[in-house]
Amino acid sequence: MATTIDTLREKARRMRVSAIRATTRAGSGHPSSCLSAADLASVLFFREMRYDPSDPDNPSNDRFVLSKGHAAPLLWAAYAEAGIVDEAAPMTLRRFDSPLEGHPTPRMPWVGVATGSLGQGLSAALGMALAARLDGAGYDTYVLLGDGECAEGSVWEAAALAGHYGASNLFALVDVNGLGQSQRTMYGFDVDRYAAIFRAFGWYAATVDGHDHAAISAAFEDCRARGGDRPRVIVARTFKGRGVSLLEDKDDWHGKPVPEAQLEAALAELSQPYSSNGFQPSIRTGVTVPEGPASHTVTVDREMGSTTATREAYGDALAKLVAQDPRIVALDGDTKNSTFSQTVLADHPDNFFEMFIAEQNMAGVAAGMSACGKIPFVSTFAAFLTRAFDQIRMAAISGSDIRFVGSHCGVSIGPDGPSQMGLEDIAMFRAIPGSVVLYPADAVSTEHLVARLADTGGISYLRTTRPKTPVIYDSAERFEIGGAKVLRRSGGDRATIVAAGVTLHEALRAAEQLASEQLGVRVIDAYSVKPIDAETLREAAADTGCLLVVEDHYAEGGLGDAVLEAVGHRAEVRKVAVRGVPRSGKPDELLRAFGIDADSISARVREAVAVGNGGNRAP
Amino acid sequence: MATTIDTLREKARRMRVSAIRATTRAGSGHPSSCLSAADLASVLFFREMRYDPSDPDNPSNDRFVLSKGHAAPLLWAAYAEAGIVDEAAPMTLRRFDSPLEGHPTPRMPWVGVATGSLGQGLSAALGMALAARLDGAGYDTYVLLGDGECAEGSVWEAAALAGHYGASNLFALVDVNGLGQSQRTMYGFDVDRYAAIFRAFGWYAATVDGHDHAAISAAFEDCRARGGDRPRVIVARTFKGRGVSLLEDKDDWHGKPVPEAQLEAALAELSQPYSSNGFQPSIRTGVTVPEGPASHTVTVDREMGSTTATREAYGDALAKLVAQDPRIVALDGDTKNSTFSQTVLADHPDNFFEMFIAEQNMAGVAAGMSACGKIPFVSTFAAFLTRAFDQIRMAAISGSDIRFVGSHCGVSIGPDGPSQMGLEDIAMFRAIPGSVVLYPADAVSTEHLVARLADTGGISYLRTTRPKTPVIYDSAERFEIGGAKVLRRSGGDRATIVAAGVTLHEALRAAEQLASEQLGVRVIDAYSVKPIDAETLREAAADTGCLLVVEDHYAEGGLGDAVLEAVGHRAEVRKVAVRGVPRSGKPDELLRAFGIDADSISARVREAVAVGNGGNRAP
Repeated sequence: MATTIDTLREKARRMRVSAIRATTRAGSGHPSSCLSAADLASVLFFREMRYDPSDPDNPSNDRFVLSKGHAAPLLWAAYAEAGIVDEAAPMTLRRFDSPLEGHPTPRMPWVGVATGSLGQGLSAALGMALAARLDGAGYDTYVLLGDGECAEGSVWEAAALAGHYGASNLFALVDVNGLGQSQRTMYGFDVDRYAAIFRAFGWYAATVDGHDHAAISAAFEDCRARGGDRPRVIVARTFKGRGVSLLEDKDDWHGKPVPEAQLEAALAELSQPYSSNGFQPSIRTGVTVPEGPASHTVTVDREMGSTTATREAYGDALAKLVAQDPRIVALDGDTKNSTFSQTVLADHPDNFFEMFIAEQNMAGVAAGMSACGKIPFVSTFAAFLTRAFDQIRMAAISGSDIRFVGSHCGVSIGPDGPSQMGLEDIAMFRAIPGSVVLYPADAVSTEHLVARLADTGGISYLRTTRPKTPVIYDSAERFEIGGAKVLRRSGGDRATIVAAGVTLHEALRAAEQLASEQLGVRVIDAYSVKPIDAETLREAAADTGCLLVVEDHYAEGGLGDAVLEAVGHRAEVRKVAVRGVPRSGKPDELLRAFGIDADSISARVREAVAVGNGGNRAP
Repeated sequence: MATTIDTLREKARRMRVSAIRATTRAGSGHPSSCLSAADLASVLFFREMRYDPSDPDNPSNDRFVLSKGHAAPLLWAAYAEAGIVDEAAPMTLRRFDSPLEGHPTPRMPWVGVATGSLGQGLSAALGMALAARLDGAGYDTYVLLGDGECAEGSVWEAAALAGHYGASNLFALVDVNGLGQSQRTMYGFDVDRYAAIFRAFGWYAATVDGHDHAAISAAFEDCRARGGDRPRVIVARTFKGRGVSLLEDKDDWHGKPVPEAQLEAALAELSQPYSSNGFQPSIRTGVTVPEGPASHTVTVDREMGSTTATREAYGDALAKLVAQDPRIVALDGDTKNSTFSQTVLADHPDNFFEMFIAEQNMAGVAAGMSACGKIPFVSTFAAFLTRAFDQIRMAAISGSDIRFVGSHCGVSIGPDGPSQMGLEDIAMFRAIPGSVVLYPADAVSTEHLVARLADTGGISYLRTTRPKTPVIYDSAERFEIGGAKVLRRSGGDRATIVAAGVTLHEALRAAEQLASEQLGVRVIDAYSVKPIDAETLREAAADTGCLLVVEDHYAEGGLGDAVLEAVGHRAEVRKVAVRGVPRSGKPDELLRAFGIDADSISARVREAVAVGNGGNRAP
């Protein structure tokens, strides 16, 4: 039996009181942003959504994403009203010892993704909706957006894709309170404008008074009756701070709690209860999470010396893994014929998602899919993953498990020019807490490492190369995250070359040249940039006294910095990297121009050995 | 007298031949993407735009941005047909010794911003249009987009803002050839869909057959007649590879030149010239670039020991600078009351641009403004600048001069939680070639460094702090990019603490504690993270043997890595940084929890000194 309107009013009133009290207690927070959405949340949590309050992470439950994450106190109030947390919990808001953070994080149950960086929630919700469809699961996904965050293009990336895929199991609510942090929003209270934009992107859109519980509930009915195969959005006209005259539709109150001195007066306006007959949750059952193997392996069969681009080996390996594990999905931004994720599309079309040219949404969708038990691999050109840095950062905070794969790294791509060259990608992914960064040099190591990534949680990154490179490892060789391979060593090594990917092959050529001059050098394949094999590097430092780190990446934040941290004061580390903005040209010309080809490496080694490893020449 | 239609046809035919020949000669490139837009480009360059081919960088010229940068061969062909470059120049496409790169860069005249990372051109063009309006300059800005790139949300960020500001001096053309790199676009040939979206964002939109020169020209007339105060877009239905049956509307030909063997057959289809009476450029004159002082200074008057947040000092300094130099503009993403860019709005409203919550577009607009002689300062929370990493990367390739300012860095912001904490911002900006990264600790150094940034070209970054910090410098102190300050030193220093921003104050407190234990430590304010003062650090390494780098940033890519590179093998460097994802809490609790408060620093120093600086303990 549907919750009565009076009960919805009472739930909204109690949530308003909770949000006001909790933020004043915390001394910070966004009460006015909670009050504008309290009535929408009341209808959503206590009439529309189907979930089991006693088991909030049950896979049969509808999913909810609070895209306007700064309204977290409203979410915690809804949890308390639903009985997911006890009544007193919201008063621990923002405390170091409390999981009720200032913006939602998965420290709390039923929070699939962290929010708080605006404009990301719709992408995550779309990922959940697409995961549900892939699993044939009946749950719906609901997302509450603010109007201000609709200025973020990522919202429209998600809207366009949701429309394209006809995600009719996705419901969005937009809380149009007309006020941003610092001034009126672009469109103020023009709910028809938002509705028109969503409709243009293929959505069914309804507009409503966001403080009229009956009207909101009717809007949901209207969406279900007439939405057809379109995603649905309810654009609600609201007032920021609704219900407390101190805050209502007032500028300069964003992110400010009610001062202690005015608290009682504010609460007095919310003191009149409505007659409530309580809330009976509507519970769905029967959804199970698909299972797969605990660990993954690929059988590799490649001939030593044969040439294959590591990007192609990535596609081969991933297709083999999808055959073993239905949870693995491949997402690509209209570059599948360059990244070779197309191999998955060819062999397992259901597990491939074309995300078109919208990298922010692609990362956000992957986070939503991860929250629903998928194992996403996300690929595009390495350079274009920078587009999604904020989403990647948030995915780490969300505890998402996502494998990013960037092809076309470095100057070695050649004539396309600098806009297409990934030269800061390692720096970006190294800075993500707990991340894994891999940069294999051949097809064999690539395939084995793709399997390792399937087993790896958190945010990981595989860097692949455009040109073909020779296979240098036996197909049965083992590769571990955190490992490295010493490819050349002798008793008399006078220097060590540390490289990965395309520069490893240049390093091996340089070592040949130098050997012919009786100059012994050690060569290390640092395919695991993070975590890095400090032991192998420190041994080389002790044995050879000087390390040259050669990478097709800018000098900051890449393999060179990783080696510097591992080696520290133990030996001289010289960074040989791309300095300055590159240009179009042939790959060989560019490797030479930026000093990372075999001849340049040999020259740098001779120079280092000549000065007896004295003085750090790294600028 | 307007160019005749037959001349426009002939120009288009010749540009098609040029694009085919140049890409086949280069052995790579995107001829099919050039052919779809050749007729649009012909009407644009030879009838609609006003510019002086003999002086392409004249400030009176209309501006043009090729957002679909992979069509560069078409642009170079237009340059040749207009007489900006000689007829043979396009055949040097993509050569290392040629400025005609695979995607446009400012190595060529009249290219204001580099393109090639899709979805960024409209933002840059909007920046140019807003700069023209600010200067009261009569030139218009034209931008050519592909349909595939309209999946990028940044396009809609720019569309929304252009509509909001009524940028009627902005003309966009969308080349709807229906094919992406790897498959059909989301909307195929549905030009009405694109028009509807642009209209929903407040644009005047016309649709047209993109291969009908008369119709395209009429569409421009229609836009001028009926566009009113709205930005204008012409959505053109085209065919990829138009004019060459081998390529026309064929999949799998994206980014592939016509093979040598098929070249003559392809060109034969383009061999019939149209009767042309030549092209008479339409030239505008009279626009001058506003001037300002060659160098900037601020008068600072702050009391030692008084407390001010560096973010507030930023606003104070910038407002003083705008008073001296009308070229300086402040852009902010609805955080002006947090970043204090609102001080500029209050004192100089014309020089402030509210960009709303759309950081990608904000960075792209700044690049466009820079190309028109403005000195942009772009501010939001440090964490949210990660949203614009791809635009920042492209701005470096564009040679843009942009100062980014990120407030609310690190765990020191406290209860808002991790989504709001900038902890990877230094890593991001250090990885930008030629960048400058500054992180001042007090209001005095902040103000002086803001003036230094106004003089600094390229991409620079100023990191500001949320909490108030005490003034530790005399108002007359001098601060240079690349400098550092030794705040404590004695003959017997046994270790050095290197810090910046909020952790510098913790370091000073730690030094006090340790001094009371007769343990002398040197304290260095490394306010210039890049370039870093290697000399001062190496002197400290030689004198004290061990350096602790303490920063409110993740351990990778920040100040610690910068110091490691400068010090290398000369001394032990221990990184004390934020490891792992933070959470909500009080600033003091968080500094302590992540080991960057005074007590933790003192403990780490004692530990380092106890082990006699042996062994690098950095994980």
